[in-house]
Formats: sequence, structure tokens, C-alpha cells
Amino acid sequence: MELSSLAEDFEELLNVGIALSSVHDLDKLLDLILKEARRVTHADAGTLYLVQDEKLIFKVSQCQSLMDRWGEERMRKMYQSFEMPISRESIAGYAALTKKILNIPNVKEIPRGASYRYNSAWDERAEYTSQSMMVVPMLDRGDKVVGILQLINALRDGRVVPFLAEYEKLASSLASQAAVAIENAELTEDLKQAHLDTIFRLGVAAEYRDKETANHIKRMSHYCLLIAEGLGWTNEAVNMLLWSSLMHDVGKLGIPDAVLQKPGRLTPEERRIMEYHTVIGGNILKGSQAGVLKQSRIVALTHHEKFDGTGYPRGLKGEQIPIEGRITILADVFDALSSKRVYKEALGEEEVLCILGEGRGSFFDPKILDVFFGRLQAAREIRGRFEDWAEDFDKFRNLDHLMIEEGAERKKTERNLQ
Amino acid sequence: MELSSLAEDFEELLNVGIALSSVHDLDKLLDLILKEARRVTHADAGTLYLVQDEKLIFKVSQCQSLMDRWGEERMRKMYQSFEMPISRESIAGYAALTKKILNIPNVKEIPRGASYRYNSAWDERAEYTSQSMMVVPMLDRGDKVVGILQLINALRDGRVVPFLAEYEKLASSLASQAAVAIENAELTEDLKQAHLDTIFRLGVAAEYRDKETANHIKRMSHYCLLIAEGLGWTNEAVNMLLWSSLMHDVGKLGIPDAVLQKPGRLTPEERRIMEYHTVIGGNILKGSQAGVLKQSRIVALTHHEKFDGTGYPRGLKGEQIPIEGRITILADVFDALSSKRVYKEALGEEEVLCILGEGRGSFFDPKILDVFFGRLQAAREIRGRFEDWAEDFDKFRNLDHLMIEEGAERKKTERNLQ
Repeated sequence: MELSSLAEDFEELLNVGIALSSVHDLDKLLDLILKEARRVTHADAGTLYLVQDEKLIFKVSQCQSLMDRWGEERMRKMYQSFEMPISRESIAGYAALTKKILNIPNVKEIPRGASYRYNSAWDERAEYTSQSMMVVPMLDRGDKVVGILQLINALRDGRVVPFLAEYEKLASSLASQAAVAIENAELTEDLKQAHLDTIFRLGVAAEYRDKETANHIKRMSHYCLLIAEGLGWTNEAVNMLLWSSLMHDVGKLGIPDAVLQKPGRLTPEERRIMEYHTVIGGNILKGSQAGVLKQSRIVALTHHEKFDGTGYPRGLKGEQIPIEGRITILADVFDALSSKRVYKEALGEEEVLCILGEGRGSFFDPKILDVFFGRLQAAREIRGRFEDWAEDFDKFRNLDHLMIEEGAERKKTERNLQ
Repeated sequence: MELSSLAEDFEELLNVGIALSSVHDLDKLLDLILKEARRVTHADAGTLYLVQDEKLIFKVSQCQSLMDRWGEERMRKMYQSFEMPISRESIAGYAALTKKILNIPNVKEIPRGASYRYNSAWDERAEYTSQSMMVVPMLDRGDKVVGILQLINALRDGRVVPFLAEYEKLASSLASQAAVAIENAELTEDLKQAHLDTIFRLGVAAEYRDKETANHIKRMSHYCLLIAEGLGWTNEAVNMLLWSSLMHDVGKLGIPDAVLQKPGRLTPEERRIMEYHTVIGGNILKGSQAGVLKQSRIVALTHHEKFDGTGYPRGLKGEQIPIEGRITILADVFDALSSKRVYKEALGEEEVLCILGEGRGSFFDPKILDVFFGRLQAAREIRGRFEDWAEDFDKFRNLDHLMIEEGAERKKTERNLQ
């Protein structure tokens, strides 16, 4: 390899590194890493493993020649996720333990002294012949193995050849860039999950004092997601609505028990107080810089505005109502009708759809209602996924019951201590 | 420049890129970017600007020769943050608008036809002579200018020379890596801020129904931070406690109004119900994978456990009480004593300290009390920073008042519509 081409290769790697750093979706990132690693080393096929809980987890496989033969869909079916221990007996495990690149000219001719063997199960199943292989540990800056790149069958002029020794350095540079990009994507993912979890707690805390269950807010948010998808929103926008709608009833935290937990019908004055949960929600959520909290404020303020202008708190009408409000009112009402509550049974689907249809243009934006009606099968799946169980009701609110339980527990502890 | 050295330079740049990607603290990252850019181009000095709201914001400056002459502290005082418009009249602005590297052999000899001029104000103030300059726009993958690197006085054998044309490519590669690293650090920062904001809302929602103010939880959390710092915790651990302690009273959301908002003394039975807010908080926060929520659960459950075992809910004693609980009880009591509440005036500092001292070993872990007493000046500053104002009290809970206001507003709107 000439030095000029080495400089070019490294310069290209720089661009690959920048590209990797820009991808925050872990699945897309892993796909791109393997693709670039194969391109740089002229490999026909490859597999990427991540290290998790001291195991190697299979994540992605790619094979150009099989893909050409069979097409993408069949290829995808051939790969099933699996995991394996990190041991010296597998090639990937060996590279993970030694933290060194393994460059094997022919997997059928591994020296007898080696602790690892090639597992030909996949070759047989896929009617593929693995021959040359380069296995590259992805090391982060602390020299921790983040994952393993297994590159298979280097090609030169259409024939399988061993991987050039000169590629080892390039592959290992790429693997280091990949490692830090993976760790960054995981960090971003963790931060998002932690935030989502906190948002969920805020929603749970609100439903806590109400006659609802934690599953109500999950279902309701997922119905919102369905509608947003149906409206053709971007993935990011859809997810943000999923998050922000979790907080739609947060204002109920400010409603007195006497109103919020009254068993019978509310008086007109009590109803006015109850309606005020929209404004209180807006107050709790106001003044944030974060997009999701800004949107959740809109949801809190407008999820009881009706399309014909007879809703609350502001009596907005039609397109005056932010789209978030028009979506959440439908999701909220659908779930209220189709779920059991402490004070009522669930209605059957036919009846629910009939009631929703009657609200077309009065409660609901017709366009949004149509989108939702077009996705009923998905809505049914959400209902099944977040079903309420008997113990979900009154779990927290029945304080006396809780107190008794705790008292009993304390007595038990005291007894054990005696 | 030889090709072999070019390959080495690019290989080194790869490692710089990996290093940059691993830094998530924006200030540290900007420092490192400028340092590496100066090293790669052999520049004596340099300045880094970020683009924000269509302006160039000065962020970092470094100058080796002045640093050698004057030392770090005096250097730092010489640089004051400033911003300037992005215009063709400044060198940095020109590079930002054209997105091209500007390589100026001598800033005193800029051709008359150029739209930009060198601003020598800083040179005069610092008794420094800027001569050669290379100005590099930091472009992200979408070709957006994230910032500007201004490198000053290339050195060769101790003399100032123009920047070599060959360095332009290296500098621009480094600038691209820097751009994506900056955007990633900003994304991480935004995600953290958004999460912190949500945690704060959860805290606010809890205090909302109580006799506290939003500032109480801010002060209380910052006192926790003070103590954790004093105990020598890492930055990360200190920050996590700041966040998790914001949620210490979240369980009050589950306490009935009749108890939570009772004006006078509680009966023993009511007090038992009130004490249950610790357990309810633990319930709201349980089962999370996120470190901050796990810790907040511990805080919620243990911030009323006393060192001598007479606290609640479990009557834990001494080191049985998680350190988070031993810290938060002190922070909480200190703030309760030293702040005005609706039903009482604030105590003077002397009296507060006397009461805390009496709780040494009974309420409080002596070790933690000593740490806190050692940081009273910082505690005073926190008190001043998050002072309660008259309008912070009863803002939300006085629902009738809110309803009247809203009613008035609605009437006004109706009048305007007539």
C-alpha cells in the first residue's frame, strides 16, 4: 500500500468518524459502523456484537453476496438475535478477551494450538462459505471492550482473499471511533429514557389522586402516538407527543380532594373548579425551555377544548385549538369510554365508536377522527398491552388500607426484633 | 510536507477526534478543541467563538507566550466574554459567512480590497503582536457554521511565520470533528436540562398542595449539594443528589387535603397519615432503571429518619440510614427553621444553629452536621439566591382566588368580543 493512499484512507476515516458521531439512533449507528468497516476492508460480510452484562450480544449482520442472491427481506429473517458468553473458545470471545485484532486467512485452517474454533453452523444454514476473517475489538478510550466487529471474506477482483495486514490499523482506528460513537448513543438513549421515566412519574402522581390508573395515561399517550403517526408526523414529533401527553392531567394535583374524589355528580360550581385542572396544569408546566414541556403545557391547557367551541377553559373553536389538543381530547375520551373505572363498566367497542361518531365536528376534529378510525386495529393492540387489573384501582388512594398494612408490617418487624 | 507525515498527521487527528467525542462537558470540550487546533497548526495563540442566535459568542482564548509571561490567573482576567454580529467586517465574521478558511500571512497587511479589517484593540491591551492568522469555520455535516477557530501566530523555530497552506486541510478536518462534538455536547446538555426541568416540576407539583414554596425545594436541594461537596463526593454524585432531592416530598401528593392542609396541630392519627408521605413517595418513584430516580426513591423514603432511630417510617438508626437520608433531613430542617412559612416567621440564624446543634446525634449525623457548619457562608448565599417573596405563598392553593381571577379574565374577553 502506498503512503499517499494511506493518507487518503485516514482522511476518509476521519469523515467516517464524523458521520458516526452524528448518528444518535443506536440501531442505525450499528448498521452504519458495520457497513463502513466492510467497505474500508473490502469485506463481503460481517457481524457486529455488543458487550452487555459480560456477554456478547449479536446485533447486526450484513452479507453482500447473499443479499444480491436473496434480497433484503429473506436476509433479515435469516438472522436471529442471540447471545454468547465471552470465552476463549469462540473467535469473537477470544478477540474480546485479548483486546487484539485476529486476522485469520482461512477459518477452516485455524492452527490446532488455538483455543478458538470456527462455528460453521451459520454457513451451513445460509449456504455460505466463510473463509478469511478479521475480528476487531471495539475499544473505548478507557480500553474497555464495547463490542466486536467480525469481518468476513475480503474480496479482491471478485475472489476471496485474506485480509491485508495493512487494513488492521485502519480497522482498529475505525473500531475506536465506533466505540466512542456507540457509548455516546447509549448515553443519549439513557438520558432520554431517564427523562421519559420522570415524565411518567409526574403523570402517575397526577392520576394517583384521581379515579384513574397509571395504565390510563399509558394507553391515552399511545393513542395520541397512533393518531400523530396517522397524520404523517415525523418520528421525533410523534415521540414528543407520546411524552408530552403523559402529563395531560397534571393539573389535577391542584384540585381539592372534596371535588376530585367526590363519589357522585358534581354541582355546577364544583364542575367549574374541576375544569380548572387544565389551567393549573398550564401553571405547573409553564416557563420551560424544553420542547417536551412546552408541548405538554399546550396539551394540559387544551385537552378539553371541543371542536365546536363549547369546551374549556377558553372555549376555543376548530383550528384555533392547537392540534395537540384536538388529538388528546379524542385519545382521552376514547380511553374513558372503553375502560372500566371504579364507578362504571367499560363500554363495548361498537358503542364506543358510535359515541365517538356522534361527536364528529362537535367534540372532535373530523379529520383526526377519520385518522383514528383508520387505525382501530392498532388501538385494540394498545388496549390489550396496557390492560387494567383489579389491583390497579384504588391502590394508592385508599390510605386507611395502606396504613393498616404498614401497621401490620411494623408490628411484624417489632415481633421479629423481640 | 511529506506524504508519510501527512498520513501520520491524519492518524493523529483520528485520535483527537475520538478524544473530542469523549468529552461531554461543553466548556472542557471547547478548551480541548482550541488546544488541539493550536498544537496541530503550531499556533502560539487562538480564540474560539460559537455561533448562537446569529451572533459570534466569544468562548475561549489561549496564548502560550503570554501565559508563560504572566501566568494562568492574570490571563484569565484579561479575557472577558463578548459577542459580535456576524458581518463581513470582522475576520471571524467573514469566515463564518463564506464558510471558507482565511489564511492571512500578516494581519497588518490585509489587502485594501478586503471587506474585513484586523481589530488591534486586544493586542494593544495585552501588549501582544498578532501577525499570522488562520481562521477556520467549524462546519457540521449539514454545512452549518457551529463556530469559528481563530489561530494566531504560527511558530517555526521560535519565530512567527505564516501558517503553512498544508495545515489548512488538517485544521478543517479537525474543525469538522470539533463541530460534531460540540453539537453532541449541546444535545447532551439539552437533554439533561430538560430532564432536570421535569424533575423540578414534579417537586413543584408536590409542594403545590403543601404549605411550601417552589423555592423551598430549590434551597433544600442546594443545601444537599453543599453537604455532598463538603463530603468530597464527585461532581457527578453531587449533581445527582441535587436532582434527586428535588423530589423528596413527592409523596405529599398522596396525602388527603384534610390532613395536608389542616391549619392547626395534627392529632396523633393525622400525624401518622402525614408521615406516610415518605412511603407514598417511595411508591411513586419505585421500579425505575434511572439512577437519579432510584436515588430519589431513597431520599423520599428516608428524609425523616433520625440518627438516634426515632424517625419514620422505619425507625432506622445511625449508619443504617442511607447517607442520602442523613443529608436531606439536615437540609430540610435547616430550611424549615430559617424560612418564613404561612404559619410562622423565619428564625434568626443564631437560633437556627443552636437548634441544629441540639439535634447533634439525635436528629443529625454529627459528621454531616460538622460539614454543614463548615459551609455556612455558602448556605447564606443560597438563601439569598432563592428568597421567597410574598407572592410565592398560596399562589396556587387558594383556588377561589384563582377562580375569581379567571372569571374576571373571561368576562373581559367576553366584553372584548361584544
